[in-house]
Amino acid sequence: MRNALCEMLDIEFPLFAFSHCRDVVAAVSRAGGFGVYGGLRCTPEELETELSWIDAHVDGRPYGADLVFPQKLEAAPDAAQDSLRNRIPQGHRDFVAGILRDHDIAFPDNDPLNRAPDLSHSHAGALLEVAFRHPIRLIANALGMAPPQMIEMARAHGVPVAALVGSAQHAVRQAEAGVDVIVAQGTEAGGHCGEVSTLVLVPEVLKALRAAGHAAPVLAAGGIVDGRQMAGMMAIGAAGAWTGSVWLATTESEVSQTFRDKMVAATSRDTVRATSRTGKPSRQLRSTWHDAWEAAGAPEPLGMPLQSMLAIPALNKAEQAADRGSEKAKALVTYYVGQGVGLIDGIRSAGQVVQDFKSEFADAVGELEALVG
Amino acid sequence: MRNALCEMLDIEFPLFAFSHCRDVVAAVSRAGGFGVYGGLRCTPEELETELSWIDAHVDGRPYGADLVFPQKLEAAPDAAQDSLRNRIPQGHRDFVAGILRDHDIAFPDNDPLNRAPDLSHSHAGALLEVAFRHPIRLIANALGMAPPQMIEMARAHGVPVAALVGSAQHAVRQAEAGVDVIVAQGTEAGGHCGEVSTLVLVPEVLKALRAAGHAAPVLAAGGIVDGRQMAGMMAIGAAGAWTGSVWLATTESEVSQTFRDKMVAATSRDTVRATSRTGKPSRQLRSTWHDAWEAAGAPEPLGMPLQSMLAIPALNKAEQAADRGSEKAKALVTYYVGQGVGLIDGIRSAGQVVQDFKSEFADAVGELEALVG
Repeated sequence: MRNALCEMLDIEFPLFAFSHCRDVVAAVSRAGGFGVYGGLRCTPEELETELSWIDAHVDGRPYGADLVFPQKLEAAPDAAQDSLRNRIPQGHRDFVAGILRDHDIAFPDNDPLNRAPDLSHSHAGALLEVAFRHPIRLIANALGMAPPQMIEMARAHGVPVAALVGSAQHAVRQAEAGVDVIVAQGTEAGGHCGEVSTLVLVPEVLKALRAAGHAAPVLAAGGIVDGRQMAGMMAIGAAGAWTGSVWLATTESEVSQTFRDKMVAATSRDTVRATSRTGKPSRQLRSTWHDAWEAAGAPEPLGMPLQSMLAIPALNKAEQAADRGSEKAKALVTYYVGQGVGLIDGIRSAGQVVQDFKSEFADAVGELEALVG
Repeated sequence: MRNALCEMLDIEFPLFAFSHCRDVVAAVSRAGGFGVYGGLRCTPEELETELSWIDAHVDGRPYGADLVFPQKLEAAPDAAQDSLRNRIPQGHRDFVAGILRDHDIAFPDNDPLNRAPDLSHSHAGALLEVAFRHPIRLIANALGMAPPQMIEMARAHGVPVAALVGSAQHAVRQAEAGVDVIVAQGTEAGGHCGEVSTLVLVPEVLKALRAAGHAAPVLAAGGIVDGRQMAGMMAIGAAGAWTGSVWLATTESEVSQTFRDKMVAATSRDTVRATSRTGKPSRQLRSTWHDAWEAAGAPEPLGMPLQSMLAIPALNKAEQAADRGSEKAKALVTYYVGQGVGLIDGIRSAGQVVQDFKSEFADAVGELEALVG
């Protein structure tokens, strides 16, 4: 398959796999797709290790990296941690401790809060420097506008920039800022997402970009877990598919066995778009965590990054207890996942997922051809 | 184009147009699609008039009808109206009067409530009898499960039954009840809708039906306003597209000029899935109506049919005042519409919309073929 995006990135099949798991990234690129390593939780040292591993295992095939380069958030270098912690009300801490108690999960009293993620420009800059020391072929900005510094640095290294958007207006703004590849992510996507569905957002973004004179290719994201859906989105005009959830259900992925089992059992109605994980609306597998935050008398979730500081350690504890066999803790386990989880009914290798996408894509195109004669 | 559904209904292009406007129904069927007349608000006499008009204007092409045949609701023959009215709290009546006052809309004090829709079996039966006196080729049930009486009556007349579903589970239940055509309607659809997006729901419904041994064709509904999207959904495996919003933006449609203008101006983010119109979640164009019901201190919307009894007369008043030129009233005007409204940028004839769908469909398939070589 050849389109402008395949040429730009030297790939055969425009299936983009966002993953925090280096094995998935390398396997997808080796199989003819394009792995994108999500490094936003890494230290610069960790990122160096992960990308070096990918370089050694990707057989020279192209891959990319996804980092956060914040435009507004300046929070959380070391000095700021204490002041952030102090902004988390005792009532919220007690509420989370109560949720854990209700699930028979022990929780240390001394330090129940997470470190805030380091969203400083200096940290982001250090990560970018690491990334550009490796042969990445695409750099994506995980949240909000790609700032000028990031785009300049990418230009200097000859690497195209991708950005995720949830509205046509944001797509035009990103293209105007110099972004090369627009990922139009619908509300059915796992993680932070807007309210417009992929089926509507993709053509709306394409129309708005072309009307504004921008030729940037548009990837469809949100809900896509098979090659038929990918073909469908490309029939609409997408240059390829950007996927996430489907890679969590692979033998290689980083998620726990508990979450893997939950994914296979879930229907598309078992996700929820909620603020109780990070403070911004993000789609996750519904669990008793969300029930608790939605119950009468629950506190309002805090903003970003305070809610994550509160939520992540508690959810990590739940995951550990669940993997040790606690049924109560299993009910609490959750993670980012899109509505496409309803289509996942087993665990495959990442390479097999790419092969299945390819054959499903070919079937879909063949049947459409047969239909129109 | 030929598939099993096209054969079943003797149509050339499996584009289904749900409309309350007889002109749209006839125009779509004449142009090679399949018009479905939404008769749920009609008296039997009105339905007779509308279907006779369609018979006289459809050039012998096939068309269908969509009615409500309620399974649970037994409410609202004449005798029940008073008791329903008495269940609407004074606080809710005052709240709605206040909304209208805030928009400078006069509202009669003597009878501010609507008649409840007649959802009795005898009324539904009378409508069905009218419908089956006409050469309809499909009968659809607008809400919930198609009850056995409806399916038996359709069988006796040799007419296939269609039903709208928002989940895979409901699709299997409908097929088990004997429904012949499943309309998988995503959350982006106008009107009553679930939470799962069309892109995920269509393959999930297909998978669940086939796993349960049902061969019923599946139509994709929700967000589809052009032929590229239709091709995309058919690549995924849908047998065709079921559409609604796009027909509101036609020269023939029943909506007011105010609403027509609002549709052309709207983006996909200007819809809301809210209970403040009918008591059940339905997608509408966001207006000051929704803002008022979501504001702090607003009462909780009532259930079905009480909320409609309260909302419809008020919104009709707003529409009338808006069409007389009141800017304040315009802000209040709303109607059912899906997220696809963001893709609509002008008013066309219904026949032109069908022609555009066909050429967009052909373009999409052609480009996909070229892509894979």
